[in-house]
Amino acid sequence: MTSSSTLTPNAVLERLQWRYAVKKFDAQKTIPNDTWDALEQSLVLAPSSFGLQPWKFFVVDSPAKREQLLAASWKQRQVVDASHYVVFARPATLGPADVDRFIDRTAEVRGMSRATFDGYRNVIVQFIQQPRFDAAGWMARQAYLALGQFMTAAAAMGVDTCPMEGIDPKQYDAILGLEAKGYVTLCACAAGYRAADDKHATAPKVRYPTAAVIEHV
Amino acid sequence: MTSSSTLTPNAVLERLQWRYAVKKFDAQKTIPNDTWDALEQSLVLAPSSFGLQPWKFFVVDSPAKREQLLAASWKQRQVVDASHYVVFARPATLGPADVDRFIDRTAEVRGMSRATFDGYRNVIVQFIQQPRFDAAGWMARQAYLALGQFMTAAAAMGVDTCPMEGIDPKQYDAILGLEAKGYVTLCACAAGYRAADDKHATAPKVRYPTAAVIEHV
Repeated sequence: MTSSSTLTPNAVLERLQWRYAVKKFDAQKTIPNDTWDALEQSLVLAPSSFGLQPWKFFVVDSPAKREQLLAASWKQRQVVDASHYVVFARPATLGPADVDRFIDRTAEVRGMSRATFDGYRNVIVQFIQQPRFDAAGWMARQAYLALGQFMTAAAAMGVDTCPMEGIDPKQYDAILGLEAKGYVTLCACAAGYRAADDKHATAPKVRYPTAAVIEHV
Repeated sequence: MTSSSTLTPNAVLERLQWRYAVKKFDAQKTIPNDTWDALEQSLVLAPSSFGLQPWKFFVVDSPAKREQLLAASWKQRQVVDASHYVVFARPATLGPADVDRFIDRTAEVRGMSRATFDGYRNVIVQFIQQPRFDAAGWMARQAYLALGQFMTAAAAMGVDTCPMEGIDPKQYDAILGLEAKGYVTLCACAAGYRAADDKHATAPKVRYPTAAVIEHV
C-alpha cells in the first residue's frame, strides 16, 4: 500500500499546518528545476471528470508580462515576487471535437483501436450536450481541483504558494493573448518561498472547529 | 524551507503516478484512525477564497445510507466498498450572516477585537453582493479545491480515492437530509484501498503531453 515515498499522517498534518497563503515572497529565491518539474506534473497528472483535462496552465516566465499582470491583480506583489506564477485557464468552448481529441489520445496511450472507446466517447458527448449543462462552470471546477493538487503537492515539497482569485480575468486574457489561443483565465497561483518577514506566516490559522465542518452521518 | 516531513520531487511524482480513480475498492480494508483524522484535517485546513470555508463535508458511516446512495450513483460500487465515503456540499445560500460568522471566528482565533476586521468584512460582503455574482458556482469551485487537497493528501499517505461526479445530487440531498441542514450536494469522494484485481490500476494513465497542457509565456 505504502512505500518509502509516502508521508505519515503526522507529516501530512505538519505540511498542511505549515502551508498558508503567502502574502510576501522572497524575490531572491527560485524553485529548483526538479521541484518545478514535479509541480508541473502535479497539473498534468491532476484528476478530472472523465479524464478530459479541460484546462491549460500558463506559466508566466516573462518579467514584463508579470509586471502587466501585477496591474491587473490589485498590485498584489506575489505576482512579480514569487519564483513562479501560473495562470489557470479553461478552453473558451467545449464540444464534441474536444471529446474526440481526448478519445484519440486515449486510444494512442492505451495502444487500442479508437472504436474500443466509442461508447465512452458517446457518454461524454451526451453529458456535455445536456440542454442546461454549464460547461464553463464544470470546466472551472476541474481546474480548481487541479489547483488543490498543485498547492498540496507544493506544500508536500516545502514550496510555498498563494492562490490568486483577486485578479481581473479579462485583463489577464488580454495580456496573455488567451482569446487568440482559445482559452479563458480562471485564477492564478504564485509559487516560491515565503519572505522571512511575512507576518502572515505566524498568524494563527483561522478555521472553523472540525465538528462544524465535518459531520458523520 | 523543508524538513524531514517533506517529500522529494521524485517521491511526489511517484505518488501522483500511483494515484488513479479506483473503480474497485477492497471492501475488507479500512483506513486507520490516525490516517483518516489527517484526511479530515486536509479538508478542515483546505484553502478557500477569503478563508471563508463555504463548505461542509458529510462522512457517510451508515451502511444503510451508503446503500441508498449507491442507487443514486449509477450503482458504482465505490460508494459501498470504499473504507470511507465523503459527500462534498456547499451552503444553500451565501449572505452577510455567513461573513459575520467567519469574522467572529477570525476575531476569536486571533484574539483580537471584531472591529479590527470590519474592513475585511466589508470587502467580502461587497464581493458576494456583486449584482451578477454566481455564489453557487464560486462556492463549488472552493469545494473542488478542497477535493484536490483531499485526494493529493490521500495519495501522499498511500490511500486510494475515487472522485465521484456521476451521482444524482438531488437524491443525495434527500437521502442525507441536506435541505433541512441548509446544504447542497456537489460531488463525493470514496477513499480506501484498491482491490488487488482492479484492472484500472495498471492501465496506462491517459494524459496529454506536457507541452499541450503547460505553456510558458
